[in-house]
Amino acid sequence: MARLKSYLTGADLKAIGEQGLLSILEENFSRVERPDVLRGIGEDCAVIPISRTQCLLITTDTLVEGVHFRLDYTPPYLLGKKAMAVNLSDVAAMGGVPTHAFLNLALPERMPVAFVRRLVQGINFWCRRYSVPIIGGDTVSCPYGVVLTITVLGKGYKGKIALRSGAREGDLIFVSGYLGDAAAGLALLEGKRKPDTAYRRLFRAQLDPIPQLELGRCLAEHKLASAMIDLSDGLATDLAHIVEESGVAAEIDAGKVPISTACRKLARESDASALAWALFGGEDYGLLFIVSPDNAEKIRKELKSLTKVEGPFCVGKIVKGRGVFLWGNGYKKDITHKGYDHFAKR
Amino acid sequence: MARLKSYLTGADLKAIGEQGLLSILEENFSRVERPDVLRGIGEDCAVIPISRTQCLLITTDTLVEGVHFRLDYTPPYLLGKKAMAVNLSDVAAMGGVPTHAFLNLALPERMPVAFVRRLVQGINFWCRRYSVPIIGGDTVSCPYGVVLTITVLGKGYKGKIALRSGAREGDLIFVSGYLGDAAAGLALLEGKRKPDTAYRRLFRAQLDPIPQLELGRCLAEHKLASAMIDLSDGLATDLAHIVEESGVAAEIDAGKVPISTACRKLARESDASALAWALFGGEDYGLLFIVSPDNAEKIRKELKSLTKVEGPFCVGKIVKGRGVFLWGNGYKKDITHKGYDHFAKR
Repeated sequence: MARLKSYLTGADLKAIGEQGLLSILEENFSRVERPDVLRGIGEDCAVIPISRTQCLLITTDTLVEGVHFRLDYTPPYLLGKKAMAVNLSDVAAMGGVPTHAFLNLALPERMPVAFVRRLVQGINFWCRRYSVPIIGGDTVSCPYGVVLTITVLGKGYKGKIALRSGAREGDLIFVSGYLGDAAAGLALLEGKRKPDTAYRRLFRAQLDPIPQLELGRCLAEHKLASAMIDLSDGLATDLAHIVEESGVAAEIDAGKVPISTACRKLARESDASALAWALFGGEDYGLLFIVSPDNAEKIRKELKSLTKVEGPFCVGKIVKGRGVFLWGNGYKKDITHKGYDHFAKR
Repeated sequence: MARLKSYLTGADLKAIGEQGLLSILEENFSRVERPDVLRGIGEDCAVIPISRTQCLLITTDTLVEGVHFRLDYTPPYLLGKKAMAVNLSDVAAMGGVPTHAFLNLALPERMPVAFVRRLVQGINFWCRRYSVPIIGGDTVSCPYGVVLTITVLGKGYKGKIALRSGAREGDLIFVSGYLGDAAAGLALLEGKRKPDTAYRRLFRAQLDPIPQLELGRCLAEHKLASAMIDLSDGLATDLAHIVEESGVAAEIDAGKVPISTACRKLARESDASALAWALFGGEDYGLLFIVSPDNAEKIRKELKSLTKVEGPFCVGKIVKGRGVFLWGNGYKKDITHKGYDHFAKR
């Protein structure tokens, strides 16, 4: 489509990357210092106080056909389910309870009604599971593809909301489950392989992620996490957000990154790196949380019984400095923000 | 893009129209009867009680390149400004005060940085004017075009929120300003005419609408409107929402529909119908509000001084029955839902 010429020149978003785009937003929408905004840009959810004890949490995510999903291998039911799950995951990362949701559906007018029905049923799966009604939104036509925006509201209690900014030197870094399965699943789907029982967990991780609401709530409720975020862009990038907001650095022990047997098997077979999927792939939608050494034992022992996750796994520790570093056999690599970047040169 | 074959068959959205799509959503997300949802789907904003006296209002709108705007004639600054204005207009229609906003930006990675900067500055215009900080959102790449979703939160006071459902037989129908200017402006832009001072107000109505927050607030505060909605889809469709939610019918007097001199002039010159633009064109973003006969005199006399709008104009009355009807010289036409439909056969 033709565009006003005067705005067609100069550097484009690819040249400045996602961080560059975020800088432009931050210049204009500077972090707000107002009593009615506890947390804004830079958290999984915005936090607005609504009473002496309660806060409103708000998160919103947009999924674009051809970028976040492809309709040639994504059944509409699972697409809807995932769109809702990734938003609930943001509420989980703050230790909140989701309460209401909004759905903005941009659809080509030639989209089959059957597709829309299944999409909506998929969204509704998580809505029913967690009693989160869709109470508004927008329906618009979009000639080129499906664009889905879901906004979820939740509630949290003051002093019991897990932020990105609480990590301190000496704290331990935990993840709630195996990493890299979702990226491996994507590689499988992009390679157009038929479902194979050995790889079932990889397909599932990519197409049908589970928001860790009970885990997030438990960690926040008992104040067990000094900082928390959900694993949407890959450990390298999600951890970078935590260390930046907390003013610290992180060291990941390459040998401790939890990788499933299925993920390792596929990596071997397809000459890929399972560790790279785990660190940079994103979309695992587990929780990444930082724990003081005092609480680490409690996490290791009690968390399995409290929640239904496979982990937790300790993958490293918080240290002085800036950045995210990977320690392996005789090497140390800076992997800060090396996860998924929407506007990166690829 | 290829899509799963099994969902490619059967009727498409064009066959069922926007009302058909909304029915699918309502089947799944049935109107919620819960104490923590006062109003959901079917209002300009969702309404959630947050204290004994206050309610949270939430509205969200998606604008799609090539559908809601074209970048060959829309400067990015005005695009951003309008995207924010249409959301604020929904808060105005409930008589609320906007408090916070969220921005989901889906942009092609080849989009110039200069474009994004101006877009964001345009959004910021209304944010500053009404102290509505952007406190969250999402940035994603979108290969095919710009898709903008803005979500606005606001507050309202219980018992002083204007809904769509309060219109009663005998009430009068008011609009806050001239109708059809935005549609006429669109016709001008689509016809690629150069700006002409005679048509300045038409360009402005299409590219730079003004949310009627002060008017909405005043009407709600003094309980002057029995029902209210903003004029986004055209009088015929917006009024249809009010009569449906209220269980009544509406009669519009064709001779009373307020049409500007500029709009009439363009219609004559381009062999179009100014009345059709006014009734079906949409995007005027004034307020449509219903007033009991007792309050009508007050509205006529005092509103001009209380607010800065050109009207208000009385265009008809609420009667028994169902539907929206246009009365002209010797004719009566059913125009229910004849405004803009995203998925209509065209």
